[in-house]
Amino acid sequence: MTQALAPTSRIGILGGGQLGRMLALSAARMGLDVVIFDPEPDCPASRVAAETVTAAYDDLDAVAKFAASVDAVTYEFENVPAATAAAAAEHAPLRPGAKALDVAQDRLTEKTFLNAHGATTVAFRPVSTLAELHTAISELGLPAILKTRRFGYDGKGQAVIREMSDAEEALAAMNGQPAILEAFADFTHELSIVAARGVDGEVRAYPLSENRHSDGILRESLAPAKVSDETTKTALGMATRVLDALEYVGVMGMELFALKDGTLLVNEIAPRVHNTGHWTQDACTVCQFEQHIRAVAGWPLGDPVPHASARMVNLIGHDADAWEDWLKTPNAVLHLYGKRETRDGRKMGHVNVLGSL
Amino acid sequence: MTQALAPTSRIGILGGGQLGRMLALSAARMGLDVVIFDPEPDCPASRVAAETVTAAYDDLDAVAKFAASVDAVTYEFENVPAATAAAAAEHAPLRPGAKALDVAQDRLTEKTFLNAHGATTVAFRPVSTLAELHTAISELGLPAILKTRRFGYDGKGQAVIREMSDAEEALAAMNGQPAILEAFADFTHELSIVAARGVDGEVRAYPLSENRHSDGILRESLAPAKVSDETTKTALGMATRVLDALEYVGVMGMELFALKDGTLLVNEIAPRVHNTGHWTQDACTVCQFEQHIRAVAGWPLGDPVPHASARMVNLIGHDADAWEDWLKTPNAVLHLYGKRETRDGRKMGHVNVLGSL
Repeated sequence: MTQALAPTSRIGILGGGQLGRMLALSAARMGLDVVIFDPEPDCPASRVAAETVTAAYDDLDAVAKFAASVDAVTYEFENVPAATAAAAAEHAPLRPGAKALDVAQDRLTEKTFLNAHGATTVAFRPVSTLAELHTAISELGLPAILKTRRFGYDGKGQAVIREMSDAEEALAAMNGQPAILEAFADFTHELSIVAARGVDGEVRAYPLSENRHSDGILRESLAPAKVSDETTKTALGMATRVLDALEYVGVMGMELFALKDGTLLVNEIAPRVHNTGHWTQDACTVCQFEQHIRAVAGWPLGDPVPHASARMVNLIGHDADAWEDWLKTPNAVLHLYGKRETRDGRKMGHVNVLGSL
Repeated sequence: MTQALAPTSRIGILGGGQLGRMLALSAARMGLDVVIFDPEPDCPASRVAAETVTAAYDDLDAVAKFAASVDAVTYEFENVPAATAAAAAEHAPLRPGAKALDVAQDRLTEKTFLNAHGATTVAFRPVSTLAELHTAISELGLPAILKTRRFGYDGKGQAVIREMSDAEEALAAMNGQPAILEAFADFTHELSIVAARGVDGEVRAYPLSENRHSDGILRESLAPAKVSDETTKTALGMATRVLDALEYVGVMGMELFALKDGTLLVNEIAPRVHNTGHWTQDACTVCQFEQHIRAVAGWPLGDPVPHASARMVNLIGHDADAWEDWLKTPNAVLHLYGKRETRDGRKMGHVNVLGSL
């Protein structure tokens, strides 16, 4: 393991929200120092990091200096600008690499890439004009979903088209940004697989979780999901092919739609630790945050085997006001992100409620 | 629960070593901000804290300012000077309180207090002169152990007396400090109980652990210890009486000797999270660090129930060089403290190896 960093090395993380914070906590447990880079002063991760750089992502001098001061760089969000990633990668290993960001940042690139590597998605068409949208609708059928190609998250930048007459308004909602029309997936449930790839190419995945969203935001995950071995095998195969094709290092989240006939479609990938993997913090010996840090540090991956089942409940906005009730709930583990202000729709924390396997 | 701090409150910790670091990590997981006070710049806990005050413990202005900036103060070591504790307690709740420090800092006070509250110890005598030592030896028999009354830890400040002729040298080893002669406990094994008391007076204890020391340093703990219900009940009774008598808030470690005839004697108490409780980090839903922070924050205590058995292995000095082997060991969880320099006898980290209950 000549690529392994020493245990007192410095890990740089682009982004200091809750994912950066939880990565920092796992890294610290293993003796590593974390340096956070975030434009926001007093961001959640800054309060658990050895050092914080407060600068804009497009301040490439600051990015270069940050990367030069650490032994490896990773990130907590998929919208790291390409120039930022490139500036960091010049001075330290960037894990996962720029290719993962490139693929994950554009829904058209992403779906094209996924299908090219045997990770099937819904049918889709690029759309820039109303004429293209009309053609795409006639090819894919209705309902369908129009999405901006870039910078969508938590259901933002999306418009459902149920009738041809919705088309114009949906396109207007894209604000002139390049869009993609996606066929509607008539799924029976939403699943995800969180998998890691080490520097040596080894892939290890957690059991699938079943996820429930509302208003485009994840509310709950149940894990391990009650799915067939066949479903697990298919998901793991798709994740492995994608990880290998991206020469990926770190943890990746892959969201899946399960159709009535058993077909699995990939909704999207996230080149980072994933909200649907939070259950692993308390139900597995090695959680997704530790697994990601192990990969980034060039360390051997851990066993992604749960010792309990878990229901992960996101605390959105004022859900977090019930923190004291959660503290009193047996087998519940409370995670709060230290955000100063409670806002509707804001992820304030989560709870893992453990059960028997 | 009107005494409960809000989840974005600030917890001040006197001492920034590994215990402060692990307390900080648990506090952060629940959304709390931690402020570390330590004379040493770049101490292990400083790198996971929201803020660090670098000042001497006898800089009472700095202590007062630190305490005024937080919502509660706790500590990671029992030798917090009385004046420091008093200065802190003027500006924020000090948990555990000054009485716990007073009792724990002096072996004579401690043993007197313990026996007064039904927590039996070995017989002991205060010793300042050679004449007193000779008398004490003739009363307690040999072998016996001469210890400094104050500032002993990890076997430091102790001398075993096997024959009357060892007395003079043993006394000289005390360097003129007040001492205590303790009768030798012919124990079959060393146990400990880690128990917490909340602001409301509720006491909750983890199962006992069995501990193995060498050269005065803890090497391994096995938990839950294979002891009778009677032993557990006796230990819990002693811990509860002591916690109540101290009006204690937080986690306390109580070291026990188990004699051949089943008698349990208290060796010493530590008014803080305890090395023999590290196993709870990975074998319990609520570990000793979270439990301590809950108590300090005036929050409800958690369930101290393990979901696994554990063998905790301390990584002393160059033991920690085997970190990569531990990362590859199934069911092992590696904890490293981020200490820059590996020194013989220095606690660098520990590993919890989990098993079935």
